[in-house]
Amino acid sequence: MSEPLLNRRDVQFQLYEVLNCADLPLRSRFSEHSKDTFDAAIDTAEQLAEDLFAPHNHLADQQEPTFDGKKVSMLSDVKIACDALAEAGFIAGRQDYDLGGMQLPESIMSICMGYFTAANPSTSGYPFLTSAAANLIRVFASDGLKNQFLAPMLAGRFSGTMALTEPHAGSSLADIRTSATPTENGHYLVKGSKLFISGGEHELTDNIVHLVLAKIKGAPAGVKGISLFLVPKFTLNDNGEPATKNDVALAGLIHKLGYRGTTSTALTFGENNECVGYLIGEPHQGLRYMFQMMNEARIGVAMGAIMIATRGYRYSLAYAQDREQGRHPSNTVPDSPAVNIIEHADVRRMLLAQKAYSEGGLALCLLGSSLLDDANTLENKDDANKALTLLDLLTPIIKSWSSEFGTKSNDLAIQVLGGAGYTREYPVEQFWRDNRLNPIHEGTNGIQALDLLGRKVWQHNSQGLLLLSSRIHATIQHANSEKSKHWGDALNRALQLVQQVTQQLGNDMTTLGADRTLSNASCYLNILGKITVAWLWLQQTIAAEKGLSTEQSPQESAFYAGKIHTAKYFFNWELPTIYQDAKILTDQDDTCFSMQNEWF
Amino acid sequence: MSEPLLNRRDVQFQLYEVLNCADLPLRSRFSEHSKDTFDAAIDTAEQLAEDLFAPHNHLADQQEPTFDGKKVSMLSDVKIACDALAEAGFIAGRQDYDLGGMQLPESIMSICMGYFTAANPSTSGYPFLTSAAANLIRVFASDGLKNQFLAPMLAGRFSGTMALTEPHAGSSLADIRTSATPTENGHYLVKGSKLFISGGEHELTDNIVHLVLAKIKGAPAGVKGISLFLVPKFTLNDNGEPATKNDVALAGLIHKLGYRGTTSTALTFGENNECVGYLIGEPHQGLRYMFQMMNEARIGVAMGAIMIATRGYRYSLAYAQDREQGRHPSNTVPDSPAVNIIEHADVRRMLLAQKAYSEGGLALCLLGSSLLDDANTLENKDDANKALTLLDLLTPIIKSWSSEFGTKSNDLAIQVLGGAGYTREYPVEQFWRDNRLNPIHEGTNGIQALDLLGRKVWQHNSQGLLLLSSRIHATIQHANSEKSKHWGDALNRALQLVQQVTQQLGNDMTTLGADRTLSNASCYLNILGKITVAWLWLQQTIAAEKGLSTEQSPQESAFYAGKIHTAKYFFNWELPTIYQDAKILTDQDDTCFSMQNEWF
Repeated sequence: MSEPLLNRRDVQFQLYEVLNCADLPLRSRFSEHSKDTFDAAIDTAEQLAEDLFAPHNHLADQQEPTFDGKKVSMLSDVKIACDALAEAGFIAGRQDYDLGGMQLPESIMSICMGYFTAANPSTSGYPFLTSAAANLIRVFASDGLKNQFLAPMLAGRFSGTMALTEPHAGSSLADIRTSATPTENGHYLVKGSKLFISGGEHELTDNIVHLVLAKIKGAPAGVKGISLFLVPKFTLNDNGEPATKNDVALAGLIHKLGYRGTTSTALTFGENNECVGYLIGEPHQGLRYMFQMMNEARIGVAMGAIMIATRGYRYSLAYAQDREQGRHPSNTVPDSPAVNIIEHADVRRMLLAQKAYSEGGLALCLLGSSLLDDANTLENKDDANKALTLLDLLTPIIKSWSSEFGTKSNDLAIQVLGGAGYTREYPVEQFWRDNRLNPIHEGTNGIQALDLLGRKVWQHNSQGLLLLSSRIHATIQHANSEKSKHWGDALNRALQLVQQVTQQLGNDMTTLGADRTLSNASCYLNILGKITVAWLWLQQTIAAEKGLSTEQSPQESAFYAGKIHTAKYFFNWELPTIYQDAKILTDQDDTCFSMQNEWF
Repeated sequence: MSEPLLNRRDVQFQLYEVLNCADLPLRSRFSEHSKDTFDAAIDTAEQLAEDLFAPHNHLADQQEPTFDGKKVSMLSDVKIACDALAEAGFIAGRQDYDLGGMQLPESIMSICMGYFTAANPSTSGYPFLTSAAANLIRVFASDGLKNQFLAPMLAGRFSGTMALTEPHAGSSLADIRTSATPTENGHYLVKGSKLFISGGEHELTDNIVHLVLAKIKGAPAGVKGISLFLVPKFTLNDNGEPATKNDVALAGLIHKLGYRGTTSTALTFGENNECVGYLIGEPHQGLRYMFQMMNEARIGVAMGAIMIATRGYRYSLAYAQDREQGRHPSNTVPDSPAVNIIEHADVRRMLLAQKAYSEGGLALCLLGSSLLDDANTLENKDDANKALTLLDLLTPIIKSWSSEFGTKSNDLAIQVLGGAGYTREYPVEQFWRDNRLNPIHEGTNGIQALDLLGRKVWQHNSQGLLLLSSRIHATIQHANSEKSKHWGDALNRALQLVQQVTQQLGNDMTTLGADRTLSNASCYLNILGKITVAWLWLQQTIAAEKGLSTEQSPQESAFYAGKIHTAKYFFNWELPTIYQDAKILTDQDDTCFSMQNEWF
């Protein structure tokens, strides 16, 4: 079966009927754009993704990169695809025209890049990392570094990595040991080991620019002593060309469950004490800088998870529409014709859940991108700041909800296919394996929960949560059909619950302490995730009702009816689970907290 | 890390402190046994599993069986392990002494075989299938067939398969097309194609005995026209030795996501119209016979799922006890020592869930085995029949709950390991892939839900559900601590809910019809699964409290305390989700039922 990578009708719906992306050209940054140029960019991405990314997705999984001790080899298709993506301008897509960019909004770029991930998450990993690393360099690096590295990165001649994790420290960046010693030449000598560095070694580009977290000798302990360094695979000559191999070595490739086309590497910096690194920005500010890239990467991870979920949904949908098997329970006539399995209610349940997760997740990720657009381009500074505050709150939610339910969605796609889904002859098993990375990297979902309840909720006097509530209330105001009012009421009750739970948790922080209060942080994350996505399903309902209110083709009517029915699924089957999570929180349940190690 | 395959302390607890397996030798069938002989059998299985099954589990995943067009090849370790298992008497373990068996109870055999699955699910697949096929032949086949095939199967010289599924029909056995034509020689000529036949071809044994569902020409349509045939790979000569290659051909091996060591095959019967098959029992009774094997296989699948879950739990537990990373939220002192990750509440949550699933699942599977023991060996026929009725009700629950939560458990094991868990350098990703088969084969979990709500609940005047309730009530009577009384109350409320929901669904069957009523069958399955396992956690609590009431070593006290605390997890975090499922059922929610195909 071959079907388009994404449902373009849904993309258009979300961009132009739910979000008002057609109005973005009213903002000065996008004044040279129009809905047509947005669609043209998406068309280009879709075509490239179908032509050059999708065809080797399965092959790259089967034939993962290898390292012979000297060189990393991989399918030649990967370089062809990455070069074409860069050539078409997508690495620099959101950058200024001055930098060779297209000044496209983040929300449009999300969809463009989304097509590449949907087609081939592991090949698209390389340009994604480059784009994010280049953006960090653009914002924080000195003009000198920018002059050397930015243009070739944005053009796709150099690629980028984020080198944070160390073998002994894992997620605990406070404990990194990689050191940086200043030299008389202005650069530093970097020394240390990094693990799980995606794209850490390959031959796809002329150079690889590692953004490395390290501590300058004598720096404060913990995260306050972390600095950020640009460490190129090759240092440049005066012409800006890669000239001298830097002292960065590939210790080995890591063999993963999925995402196999993206090299995951163990890297050694400064084995011979000659690893040249350039400080980015000020000393000891590295984590702050890196968090720009990491926040961006978290939304990217979420979008990737949803794109893979969407692929699984659409594949299993096409399968269910085509595969004949069994009859309805009421039909006891043997030899009567078999029905397509989509006729079975339990198969429909699994497809509905996938539709709810993948389309709800797309709305969630696009919300993130559009908030970034607002933060960057709204002229009213107060509104721009509010967008940033809300995005800050939502980032852990977007990352964790999308990756959790994206993976769950791919699990359901396998189940729809049954025995066939368990074989490598069908693609859904690879989707599932690929997606399993997403609840882990860029901060595990457990860490996202701590970030949300331990930090984000309370920041700026809890402004973020207030902003979220007021936006949801604004949507509820627009609910005027029987269904949407009913769901608006459900959301209202849910918001009251959040308020009550949050207030209590604030008190618990004082009375019970942070360790106990944060021990059920995952329940709080679940609640906010479900509520946020329920809100987005209400938004989609309102937009669909608007669409239905004018005369439509049968196909269009069905599209809108499907939106409303999927919202019903979400409100009846998914949202109500928050009450159990809330009970655990308000009961101050100590089950996890008080479990003793020797009791296991 | 290397730790024992299962927690033997838990095995002893479940067999002898929760179930009263030490009393089984009071029954005449087991009169030559004692707790010591049971333990000796378990010791032997454990040792064999560790020595011969566990060592090639990972290798057999990496080097799956291959087919060169003539012969299937696989690691030689597989045959060595299977032969040793047979040699030690485990294929025939539960059979009569007369048949060379050990007359071991099913509950003890479950644990013995459980060790093999825990060590290596795909290698143990071969003897498991043989044992189940032999048992079917013993019960239903003619003396002639038994004389030829039973002894070599029980000795492991011949192996067995169950050949049900056909490419076009999948789970819908009513639609199979494989035909059987009687000949003058008393045998039949079988013709047709079968798919996903585990162990369908290999060189592990001298012969392979396929149990094939087929329709005799002129048979009634649908499931009432299905007969069962014994189709050997080689027909036997007068000495009972495999002599002539039968007309059964391997069309190809299927490449799976996991369970890779077990060949999954597409088989062609009668390509040259010469496939000899022997009718088992009466014509058109095949599905009934096969269901004996299938019910047994469903409990076996459940046990397999729980064994793989247990391996993941224990591996991730050992990892969490060893791996240092991060600090408690309250500790803001950088450079203070990192804690083992088991100290983090969210990691404990993931370990507690795994413990609840794997130990609760073990209790569930052992309940199934002990009911089979009761059905087979209780002298009071009424009690024996009740055990069978209850087992009949519980089979879809045991199969689906164990496979769903077993797989979920393995997902959590990956998450505990984080980035490491996503690599093939650690075993947890294989556990997860292996386990993903279990919600699919031997009837998908959607089919189990239909079996439960469409059939099992109403059979025998709903005797099964009454028996379950009265057993649960009996346990609640024994709850006399504050905690266990509290959980007994929760179970009481849950049982009232089940009664109410079941009554309504019975009415709905009449008023709304089967199609609509069964459309939310998965919710009903969820409810009964959670309640049954909660009951078993209450049983474990009562047994643990009894254990604690006498003086104990600190280690023993910790074991019992862990049981009670895990029960708390189950009652606070898992059981309450049934109320949301019940709401969907009592609301007669039609979301899945009324979704239209063109709305997707």
